[in-house]
Amino acid sequence: SRENFIHLCNPHLEKMKEDILYHFALGTGTHDFPALFGDVKFVCVGGSPSRMKAFTAYIAEELELGRPGCDYPNICEGTDRYTMYKHGMGIPSISIMLHELIKLLYHAKCSNVTIIRIGTSGGIGLEPGSVVITRQSVDATFKPQFEQVILGKTVARNTNLDEQLAKELMECSKEINQFNTVIGNTMCTLDFYEGQGRLDGAICLYTEEEKLQYLKEAYDSGVRNIEMESSVFAAMCNFSGVKGAVVCVTLLNRLEGDQISSPHDVIVEYEQRPQKLVGYFIKKRLGKV
Amino acid sequence: SRENFIHLCNPHLEKMKEDILYHFALGTGTHDFPALFGDVKFVCVGGSPSRMKAFTAYIAEELELGRPGCDYPNICEGTDRYTMYKHGMGIPSISIMLHELIKLLYHAKCSNVTIIRIGTSGGIGLEPGSVVITRQSVDATFKPQFEQVILGKTVARNTNLDEQLAKELMECSKEINQFNTVIGNTMCTLDFYEGQGRLDGAICLYTEEEKLQYLKEAYDSGVRNIEMESSVFAAMCNFSGVKGAVVCVTLLNRLEGDQISSPHDVIVEYEQRPQKLVGYFIKKRLGKV
Repeated sequence: SRENFIHLCNPHLEKMKEDILYHFALGTGTHDFPALFGDVKFVCVGGSPSRMKAFTAYIAEELELGRPGCDYPNICEGTDRYTMYKHGMGIPSISIMLHELIKLLYHAKCSNVTIIRIGTSGGIGLEPGSVVITRQSVDATFKPQFEQVILGKTVARNTNLDEQLAKELMECSKEINQFNTVIGNTMCTLDFYEGQGRLDGAICLYTEEEKLQYLKEAYDSGVRNIEMESSVFAAMCNFSGVKGAVVCVTLLNRLEGDQISSPHDVIVEYEQRPQKLVGYFIKKRLGKV
Repeated sequence: SRENFIHLCNPHLEKMKEDILYHFALGTGTHDFPALFGDVKFVCVGGSPSRMKAFTAYIAEELELGRPGCDYPNICEGTDRYTMYKHGMGIPSISIMLHELIKLLYHAKCSNVTIIRIGTSGGIGLEPGSVVITRQSVDATFKPQFEQVILGKTVARNTNLDEQLAKELMECSKEINQFNTVIGNTMCTLDFYEGQGRLDGAICLYTEEEKLQYLKEAYDSGVRNIEMESSVFAAMCNFSGVKGAVVCVTLLNRLEGDQISSPHDVIVEYEQRPQKLVGYFIKKRLGKV
């Protein structure tokens, strides 16, 4: 049915002879989008190239798509059912990627697409290494909205995520039963230091007491972790009629500190947890569990 | 004199035993910052890894620091006077880098540091390929400020850049005499598509007339180009007492279109222009012109 396809909320695109997705180096005049990407069902996005490379290797092995001994298995090859992109850090960076990704899926005539952001975050009141599946993304005043300035005017968009998808992911985590997972709100900020109430940036003009009060208010409002991409991700999924989920591991408990000082191997193991959860979810959806 | 050193506006840092610059993978407990970075005078930052790699090669050759035939000359080696970092796209991404960069310069006890952002942008009313040296960075309502939410409250910071440095760069461009250069205001946005009035994003709910009216208002207020990092760059340079400049080439004239459709070799040549200008500026400062 029509509702399973991507909703493109831009009448101008129909008038364009060619659409160049500049940051992907792809264009409708030079690439056959339906042939290349038409059967994509799952899109996984993440901020860090090294993490996304690790996830590519992991999912290729789980789904038996890899060529053994090959560092970068091309998981599109042969199946074209999986694509993935790294998006850098922060709302502007993921927003550019999402505009072009949604256009890509639209031009490719994809249907029934699920997009999952797998990432890292700071936790509030959770044991480090816990995984948070986002119920709502909230802004720095704990409101479930994404504010954006368009032609000089501030516009607020809703940041709900697909409830059913979040529950399905939670169910998967229970079945894996390897790490603590919760469903909670995720606060999305524009800055990693002052914007998240850290005391260790180059600039900090508040006290430790003020910081802790702010984080406790966040906790009381339902926030369980803080990251920098979920709000625009949720808003754009809503607009485009795509089911979206955000699954982030918490690298530390912000009520206890600001610096990420766990040993490298501990962090690497934490980072694998959202990958395991999402890998299991995809396998289950494909009937391979 | 004391005023030439980095101003660190954070009393909490003095109390920390060790400071881990997480995104640089450097820490004061594991690295000798004054020995590694103490004589840094010029810092050049840019968003794209490939562009910064090209600039590294260029400046190494200009200053005769390179090892011929070596792809990645280590321009710190032997001199330690030059460092550079890529910062990804957008305010959140460059803001993380700047917090850690300013702390790095502070811990290293650097003095008389000049930081220059070299980048790309969309021009308004300029021939594509023109270079804009930023006078003031303005927000999407044309105000010279950077608004940020800290502990849930909105704080506005001033985004002036060093006037003398901008004039000195303009003088350099006249001496090179290879491309059009202007001093003008730079609008800094959080989004590349709707935030800059483009018609070709996945979402667009305004008309072409509304778009053009907005861009003309920007032009009339003194804006000559649009990018996504200058406001927090200017605000943080001001706070830290570091002289900063923003030098961006314009890849297109936004009054004439939205898509970056020039051939790749034309774009590459455009991207070299800020590099040439800043390379000449550094050579001149070092008395090598």
